[in-house]
Amino acid sequence: MLSIEKYRSVFISYLESKTETKEPKNLYAPITYILKLGGKRLRPVLVLLTAQLFEKDHNDALDAALAIEVFHNFSLVHDDIMDDAPKRRGKPTVHEKWDINTGILSGDAMLIMAYQLFENYEVHIFKNLAKLFSKTALEVCEGQQYDVDFETREDVTLQEYLKMIEYKTAVLVAAAMKMGAIVAEASDKSQEEMYSFGLNLGIAFQLQDDYLDVYGDPETFGKQVGGDIIENKKTYLFIKAMEAGSTSNRKQLQDLYSIQPKETEGKVEAVKTIFTESGAAAATQEAIVNYTKKAFAVLEGLELTQEKKDILRAFGEHLMQRTV
Amino acid sequence: MLSIEKYRSVFISYLESKTETKEPKNLYAPITYILKLGGKRLRPVLVLLTAQLFEKDHNDALDAALAIEVFHNFSLVHDDIMDDAPKRRGKPTVHEKWDINTGILSGDAMLIMAYQLFENYEVHIFKNLAKLFSKTALEVCEGQQYDVDFETREDVTLQEYLKMIEYKTAVLVAAAMKMGAIVAEASDKSQEEMYSFGLNLGIAFQLQDDYLDVYGDPETFGKQVGGDIIENKKTYLFIKAMEAGSTSNRKQLQDLYSIQPKETEGKVEAVKTIFTESGAAAATQEAIVNYTKKAFAVLEGLELTQEKKDILRAFGEHLMQRTV
Repeated sequence: MLSIEKYRSVFISYLESKTETKEPKNLYAPITYILKLGGKRLRPVLVLLTAQLFEKDHNDALDAALAIEVFHNFSLVHDDIMDDAPKRRGKPTVHEKWDINTGILSGDAMLIMAYQLFENYEVHIFKNLAKLFSKTALEVCEGQQYDVDFETREDVTLQEYLKMIEYKTAVLVAAAMKMGAIVAEASDKSQEEMYSFGLNLGIAFQLQDDYLDVYGDPETFGKQVGGDIIENKKTYLFIKAMEAGSTSNRKQLQDLYSIQPKETEGKVEAVKTIFTESGAAAATQEAIVNYTKKAFAVLEGLELTQEKKDILRAFGEHLMQRTV
Repeated sequence: MLSIEKYRSVFISYLESKTETKEPKNLYAPITYILKLGGKRLRPVLVLLTAQLFEKDHNDALDAALAIEVFHNFSLVHDDIMDDAPKRRGKPTVHEKWDINTGILSGDAMLIMAYQLFENYEVHIFKNLAKLFSKTALEVCEGQQYDVDFETREDVTLQEYLKMIEYKTAVLVAAAMKMGAIVAEASDKSQEEMYSFGLNLGIAFQLQDDYLDVYGDPETFGKQVGGDIIENKKTYLFIKAMEAGSTSNRKQLQDLYSIQPKETEGKVEAVKTIFTESGAAAATQEAIVNYTKKAFAVLEGLELTQEKKDILRAFGEHLMQRTV
């Protein structure tokens, strides 16, 4: 087994070797651009790691890993158009650097290219990968649609919110781990367990992202702390506060979420206080711990050596170290 | 063998049975809408017809046929956004009826759903279908990109133009026929021949579309006659006229293509005269005949009974009957 850092560098070398800007340039240059923009490469690393856990050379999982990363970047390109986002990883988004039409078409091409990356695998593995990929990709679209729908809905429940983040974010982490297991031809049981581990960890990670967006350290949190509040985004914290807060808390929160002041600091602080007072902050932390525990509970039953279970646990702890 | 009309009605029944608007409604309703908007259903009919030619029950090819139709409609939804088109088949386009974001996301979902339709096939057939589909879909994206690029280029050659229409239009007709052959487990040679037949017929059909856009009968041609001229679209006719016309023809044509008058009739008539005088009209007709002949020549070598070759020839003649 290699270190996470080593898997990442192996993956990045492979990605660099595979991204050439073919003709027509206007279609492929934006693809090279977004793929080389960086990022944690978390999902492809998970594909490599999981394949190796089940005794398969991680190099044999590179194409599946790249497919996941290409898909992830496809979804970023199209989501950035939908969100009208000017920046991604500190650089102009594709539709800003080129235009919306280029973003649409290059994104489409990436989705297709992701499928092509499975073609080097033997027929049964190919079919299993492509089926899982399609199911996952469609769920990601559904998650994105729920996210859009929720913007204009006032009655989103915690359960609906959890389903949305599961689809929009967690299923891809889960699929990454299952793909590693598929490439390694692990048993169906092991494949499902890796999926479950990834799914629960993915939900925990996304909830933690909601939490850190409010309570994170501006020095270490990658994004602007308070960003969700400024944008009136209905996160787990908000929905929980509206559900569990006092009548005055709820009234105040609703008022605060109906304004978009130029000076945001006061609003952010006021909302933060309500999140804390209403018990929403504590409930969110509890949910993060619960989903992380669920993921770790899956590890117990896995048909792997203790040493390998420890690797997965260490990875999970590393990912969640900021609060758990 | 059934009649084209009968294959079409079998296909439409299947499509109707398969298009349900699942949750989230805002993602799936636009998909149901565009799929039920009508159209000639040419590509799916070709899948069914070809499967049956190679002794496979056409019902076994319905999923492959639907995949091609779903993909075709995906490309219409995204192209209509890029072209800012308000209408499709006389009805509002998806991004007009909903909005651009809905068009992007519903389109993405359709591309994925097309792949899922191959999942009922046995592993080898699945892989062959998915591989051909990916290659074709990527070519369609490339064709669309060339089309966009050509709008702002003044030096497009006939060869480049032919490659563009081949990728943007003909490869999907070719893939439809090859998919029928794949589902029927026809020999590799037969698969390639069906592809070649479809490709040449597809190019002929698209060139005919260019021709009829100028010289067609307004009563029977589906679109506005003169539409390409009004939009200064560089078609085969335009490129040929710029290549073969007299110096004065070329100068005049360039001037006419630099204006967008409110009253279009005069411009359309003037351009039409140049297309005729320069020999571009005759050259286009010749190209249509040549590509149609190429398609029919493929038929000769096919390992099919004469009766079945005649069916394909009759289909080709029916498709091209307007000029050939």
